[in-house]
Amino acid sequence: MAIQLQPVKGFRDLYPADKALQNYVFDKLKAVASLYGFENYDGPILEPIELYLGKSSKELVEEQTFKIKDKKDQTLVMRPEMTPSLARMIAQKANQLVFPLKLFNLGLRFRYEAPQKGREREFYQADFDILGTENILADAEILAAAVNIFLNLGATENDFVIYINSRTFVDRKLTELGIENKKDIMSCIDRKDKISREAFLESLKKASLNEKQIIDLVSFLESEIKPQDDEYFKKLFNILKRYGIDQYFKINKNTVRGLDYYTGLVFEAKDLSGKINRALLGGGRYDNLVSAYNPNIKVPGIGFATSDVILLEFIKIINKAPQLNPCPTKYLVTIFSQETLNDSIQILNKLRKQNISAEIYPDTEKKLDKQLKYADRNNIPYAVIAGPEEIQKGIVKVKDMKTGEQKEINISDL
Amino acid sequence: MAIQLQPVKGFRDLYPADKALQNYVFDKLKAVASLYGFENYDGPILEPIELYLGKSSKELVEEQTFKIKDKKDQTLVMRPEMTPSLARMIAQKANQLVFPLKLFNLGLRFRYEAPQKGREREFYQADFDILGTENILADAEILAAAVNIFLNLGATENDFVIYINSRTFVDRKLTELGIENKKDIMSCIDRKDKISREAFLESLKKASLNEKQIIDLVSFLESEIKPQDDEYFKKLFNILKRYGIDQYFKINKNTVRGLDYYTGLVFEAKDLSGKINRALLGGGRYDNLVSAYNPNIKVPGIGFATSDVILLEFIKIINKAPQLNPCPTKYLVTIFSQETLNDSIQILNKLRKQNISAEIYPDTEKKLDKQLKYADRNNIPYAVIAGPEEIQKGIVKVKDMKTGEQKEINISDL
Repeated sequence: MAIQLQPVKGFRDLYPADKALQNYVFDKLKAVASLYGFENYDGPILEPIELYLGKSSKELVEEQTFKIKDKKDQTLVMRPEMTPSLARMIAQKANQLVFPLKLFNLGLRFRYEAPQKGREREFYQADFDILGTENILADAEILAAAVNIFLNLGATENDFVIYINSRTFVDRKLTELGIENKKDIMSCIDRKDKISREAFLESLKKASLNEKQIIDLVSFLESEIKPQDDEYFKKLFNILKRYGIDQYFKINKNTVRGLDYYTGLVFEAKDLSGKINRALLGGGRYDNLVSAYNPNIKVPGIGFATSDVILLEFIKIINKAPQLNPCPTKYLVTIFSQETLNDSIQILNKLRKQNISAEIYPDTEKKLDKQLKYADRNNIPYAVIAGPEEIQKGIVKVKDMKTGEQKEINISDL
Repeated sequence: MAIQLQPVKGFRDLYPADKALQNYVFDKLKAVASLYGFENYDGPILEPIELYLGKSSKELVEEQTFKIKDKKDQTLVMRPEMTPSLARMIAQKANQLVFPLKLFNLGLRFRYEAPQKGREREFYQADFDILGTENILADAEILAAAVNIFLNLGATENDFVIYINSRTFVDRKLTELGIENKKDIMSCIDRKDKISREAFLESLKKASLNEKQIIDLVSFLESEIKPQDDEYFKKLFNILKRYGIDQYFKINKNTVRGLDYYTGLVFEAKDLSGKINRALLGGGRYDNLVSAYNPNIKVPGIGFATSDVILLEFIKIINKAPQLNPCPTKYLVTIFSQETLNDSIQILNKLRKQNISAEIYPDTEKKLDKQLKYADRNNIPYAVIAGPEEIQKGIVKVKDMKTGEQKEINISDL
């Protein structure tokens, strides 16, 4: 059987040009983490299925994960998200950690869903979290970090908006309406903006709401709300204004997020071009999740995640994906002939010792023009030419590959 | 059932201090890749099992991998090594790539083996490869990059040695001795240094060598060999001398490596303290692997891999693991009271706008001494104190957390 040369569906081969662009996005995410004081951590790719059951979302864990049976017949899951692993790690060492704790992870996640624009089965997520405080300032810091990611990638107010909402707020309304199966209704609301109005009403009926409940709920969801109408939002917007970022936020009662563990603030970023269907970033408060793993402790948390796949899509749409050269080399040291090989190696050593990125053409049998073509095709800025004449004079020729200009330089000055 | 708070066996929770040390090793590996002109790439974590069968090693693929059945009943494997994915990617786009091609990957690998010192079930490997040339200079460049990793980590000639050998050389001898099941014998030789002499002889007998073959093979393996005894080694050592690194290498006929796809040069690095049983780094030539995926093309290759787990172990043993502070923050902006919160946020903004890593204590309800303790426990070098008096004077106090010294600074000079 011939072996498939393409990657498995939903997985990516990242050749150097694609990898360079991914690294560009990674660097922006790391820069925000560092500027905002988030410490880097990581956890396992495989976790027992029990870690997620009853926390993330039933659909996600049961239908959208890659599962493995280990040799002891335990079911392990390739992590679909990071928050449960994080909460487990916090529960494990709560006594030794310094709270409040600001944490950052950049790592792989896996979801067994149909691939589409902005979604792969294997992707990186960056997670930013603040643990150990329920204070509203932590909410603001998390939102500020989220905004900073987009600004760092070159986006403006015209490119994205962050919808915010409060689960407490929606929860209160559901109680008022006498609705008991709140988890089901939250997940209906989460889908509202992705489906037709008819389909949404149908889903509420299926979730056994009566006609009055449906009318009241829809009217609640569709009525406008201003920050000043609610104490929490009023306070939050005041702080966001001090941060100079309130213009990026809008309250949206339909934003409830799909994960079961959220408690207070929930939010998601959307691109304003209308070209990306999915959230650019999403998160919220999860004040009870750590206790779910260790009932003896209470560590409130708030955080968000965004993926490399969606951010790569986003910067292409807003025309902010840079042209990058994946080749790090500054100087290609060419080989004139077998006789001068040793001299070429010594020039190479000299450059590298000064921490200058340099290569020697790794084949002693190829003509000079072939070597220069290699420099050209790899966008290497300079080629060093050292023939017997030059070496005798103690010099090399350094060729600027863009202009074609050649300069003679003393070997001792290299 | 209570949920296990520890990670799955062989997997790691990396809290910030551990992650900082891993990042330190990653940065060293990336620095070598960049200095030597290797371009970064990546591929999928999951690959079809067919990618590995008959290439890596039967034992590795069949017994030491994590396997998943996908929804189409295809067996996928969590990649135990990178070279087969790399060869597949090269086979896929051979026509569009510029050769020789120097590639670098840093990514996760998974092996379902018993965890031990220097070995986990989940680990990172750095892979360095040169594709598209059989030239001996590529061998030397690869070996030079390998040496540079150890030197960059602070190791010296007394800490490690790289054993080199040639599969061609051993292969020729096996032919001479009339041995046909060469794969089996190579894998016996690969284990030689890890087991007793008796066990080794027994394994050769089991692999159905006759007594004469066993005696001749052992005498071959145990006879000393000098670079000048073989044309290839002579040439290679000459080049390594020019690189100034020949002192790190020793020919060792027992070094044959465990993977089936190796053809010419094979090598592995060992620590000289005797405290680490396993190779610090291993690699070799694989001139036929790309053709195994696409018989119409011939792209010779050479490369090596090393893991974060083994390098972390190594730098601890040679006492070169640095003390690192995982917290990136330079300034903690404290909050004096609710009334001065806005001023604190403005100071925070000012620092961050200048790209200075800064945090605000993310809780508006805590006393100043609690906030200073937080700075102290996170090794944040400076705390900014802005009470009502200071603010009225247009200044802040900046406290050096190490010396306790406080300086007044104009807010406009921040």
